[in-house]
Amino acid sequence: MEQMKVVLNDDEMPTQWYNIQADLPTPMSPPLHPGTGQPVGPDDLAPIFPMNLIEQEVSQQRWIDIPEEVLAKYLIWRPTPLCRARNFEKLLDAPVKIYYKNEGYSPAGSHKPNTAIPQAYYNKISGIKRIATETGAGQWGSALSMACQMFGLECRVFMVKVSYEQKPYRRLMMKTWGAECIASPSTLTEAGRQVLAEHPDSPGSLGIAISEAVEDAVTHDNSRYSLGSVLNHVLMHQTIIGLEAKKQLEKLGVYPDVVLGCAGGGSNLGGIALPFVCDKIHGKNVTTIAAEPTSCPTLTRGPFAYDFGDLAKKTPLLPMYTLGHDYVPAPIHAGGLRYHGMAPIISHLVKEGLMEARAYNQLDTFDAGVKWARSEGFIPAPETNHVIAAVVEEARRAKEEGKEKVILFNWSGHGLVDLAAYDAFFEGKLLPYELPEEEIQRALKATNGFPRP
Amino acid sequence: MEQMKVVLNDDEMPTQWYNIQADLPTPMSPPLHPGTGQPVGPDDLAPIFPMNLIEQEVSQQRWIDIPEEVLAKYLIWRPTPLCRARNFEKLLDAPVKIYYKNEGYSPAGSHKPNTAIPQAYYNKISGIKRIATETGAGQWGSALSMACQMFGLECRVFMVKVSYEQKPYRRLMMKTWGAECIASPSTLTEAGRQVLAEHPDSPGSLGIAISEAVEDAVTHDNSRYSLGSVLNHVLMHQTIIGLEAKKQLEKLGVYPDVVLGCAGGGSNLGGIALPFVCDKIHGKNVTTIAAEPTSCPTLTRGPFAYDFGDLAKKTPLLPMYTLGHDYVPAPIHAGGLRYHGMAPIISHLVKEGLMEARAYNQLDTFDAGVKWARSEGFIPAPETNHVIAAVVEEARRAKEEGKEKVILFNWSGHGLVDLAAYDAFFEGKLLPYELPEEEIQRALKATNGFPRP
Repeated sequence: MEQMKVVLNDDEMPTQWYNIQADLPTPMSPPLHPGTGQPVGPDDLAPIFPMNLIEQEVSQQRWIDIPEEVLAKYLIWRPTPLCRARNFEKLLDAPVKIYYKNEGYSPAGSHKPNTAIPQAYYNKISGIKRIATETGAGQWGSALSMACQMFGLECRVFMVKVSYEQKPYRRLMMKTWGAECIASPSTLTEAGRQVLAEHPDSPGSLGIAISEAVEDAVTHDNSRYSLGSVLNHVLMHQTIIGLEAKKQLEKLGVYPDVVLGCAGGGSNLGGIALPFVCDKIHGKNVTTIAAEPTSCPTLTRGPFAYDFGDLAKKTPLLPMYTLGHDYVPAPIHAGGLRYHGMAPIISHLVKEGLMEARAYNQLDTFDAGVKWARSEGFIPAPETNHVIAAVVEEARRAKEEGKEKVILFNWSGHGLVDLAAYDAFFEGKLLPYELPEEEIQRALKATNGFPRP
Repeated sequence: MEQMKVVLNDDEMPTQWYNIQADLPTPMSPPLHPGTGQPVGPDDLAPIFPMNLIEQEVSQQRWIDIPEEVLAKYLIWRPTPLCRARNFEKLLDAPVKIYYKNEGYSPAGSHKPNTAIPQAYYNKISGIKRIATETGAGQWGSALSMACQMFGLECRVFMVKVSYEQKPYRRLMMKTWGAECIASPSTLTEAGRQVLAEHPDSPGSLGIAISEAVEDAVTHDNSRYSLGSVLNHVLMHQTIIGLEAKKQLEKLGVYPDVVLGCAGGGSNLGGIALPFVCDKIHGKNVTTIAAEPTSCPTLTRGPFAYDFGDLAKKTPLLPMYTLGHDYVPAPIHAGGLRYHGMAPIISHLVKEGLMEARAYNQLDTFDAGVKWARSEGFIPAPETNHVIAAVVEEARRAKEEGKEKVILFNWSGHGLVDLAAYDAFFEGKLLPYELPEEEIQRALKATNGFPRP
């Protein structure tokens, strides 16, 4: 019988997160205060995040211990299996071995709880009573709702209105886990009311929802804000994925040629790839690839610039690839990839040539996702379909080159609450969405960023 | 760090199913031909099922080898972990250790693929090209759609109309896996047309949908029918759950005092419980418990009788507890438990005192399910909420008696496509649904069955 997967026992789960800041050949640029233009200090961030998370955000320490209480919650579903996609390999008929981490096994159905749980924990032990956050398609909002429930915190989620209406199951998950889910823009915040005054029918955007959540957090007692991607500490929490995968591949005596993840804010990609980028920095021959949508091609076409994380310019200025903080991406079903910016860590790695990026259009991603579902069974999230499209491309290249290749990717989540998107695909109602060149020119102007070489 | 679960490697997965017919102290009564009243022979069943499955249905062999091709598909997600519900234990504050098999990890989200895959396989190697089946809430229909896709068979699913309309995500799963899903009653069959002629607005029922699927199978070339529960071979395929659990508990040096499953047709319950009933027959002290809905209390209140599996009386007469083949259960959200009859194996065990049964009303089951979701994270299917309610009761009893107890149960599936039911629960719109006594009298009359002691 052929081996299909590698599982780890509870006591084999990594007990530390990996912080790539300790290994970067060139340091990252710091976030800047939007008022002064100076690097932000811990005190600037204190109204938004608890101090223990701020310390993690700026830490240069290579390994950070995962607290016992967080490990105990991780163990509800972690370590996730490392699976071999033998049926998909047969379908592709290429000289590749494809391994994937199934992060859809978490209770929320994605990788998001890997950071939701420690974030809720660190807020809890800091004496915080409630957390506000935003969510696009709802993966992050549902994960944080669950984590807050587990640690006895109140949770308010501002959900982008168009998703709030299109994805009722996601907000029902939040309700089941005891959180409050608000359609954004809302009348609960100044930021929301401003948008509604100008655009009463606004479908919302992640940028608006972040503004609302930050404002909500700083205007309520004992409240803080929580972000599900982009920031350094978030990517660090996600490295549990890649660290597990490494252990599992070691058991097979295998090392990957290529490591891939889809990229919206960059957290699931960072989670699987950063431990391998570490090896690359230390001389190992491994390629890491970000798969993003052509409708929101931040890494492949956006300028590198200091830009805001949100529409209302409430966040620090982050050094990243960006399409401009006021950019509203096309309504692709991969809501988790509709973000104008990108994690500074991922942006830095791409800029320094330590990571590659490719973009895929919506139709190709669903085509890849359906092929996956019909061979491997599991129905992927629309976001995950992007990395599957990249795997298909890698396999095709390997075949053309006649070169054997070991592929590892992060199967970031299942699509069981996104099935309407599959229906639209089968009915021929999906658009590919390629970004016109003038949008890139607009982004360059808006961000005052550096044009791409 | 406290251990939360036991995983098995691929090569530790059981390679045989367990057939309890080899161990029964008294033999089961045979199914009868509806026309002759004589025991049905293999030839009577040949138009409906392939011969290899008919042989399994009547086999008295204790262990049946699982074919390599089936093992390979099982390994996509099996063995499932045996998990300790430490957070739920703390909430219940009772002297119990609670272990559960998480069958929600399958691509279809429930235990159903455990039999869908071998059924598709055995049909395939018999030269069958297409399978027709019925589904209530859609768990079975989606699992069989996936299995047929994996083995290159066509699949047509008759889905009870009320569920077809209420649970669009389930039928979208079937579509994604390439199957055809038809609302039942339909105009495609004589059985469906008859119902529609009398009741144009019929919401459908499992009994009607079975009639349609059987008729569809016998009137198409190279087609057979497939049933997702009730039959002996179906329960046998599901024993992989209990056999894995036994291995996993052995690794902990633990043996359960109580083994529980929710019961609709009886397959997930049989799957986890039959290997332990085997021990009980051979002298071990273990209690197995079926948890059913008060709206469809087949095992706790129905008469034992020979009854049909479907409304149109197309199936053989089965010896079982039943509420009458024309009984239409209340519209509870646990669609998978809305069946008038019960697996002959389960019925026989309850009749012989080898298994117990208890009924829970819908409100108590959702209350238990929400408690579970808020402590253990995973959101259970409405069916699964019934067994969780039974676990809550077992824990309460243990506390009252001051007795330590080891509980094992089958977490049969997740509720991510049933979240509308949770919403109805939170909004106070769910009814408990207790069956009035006159319905039992009607069932007694309808089935000409034996009244309960």
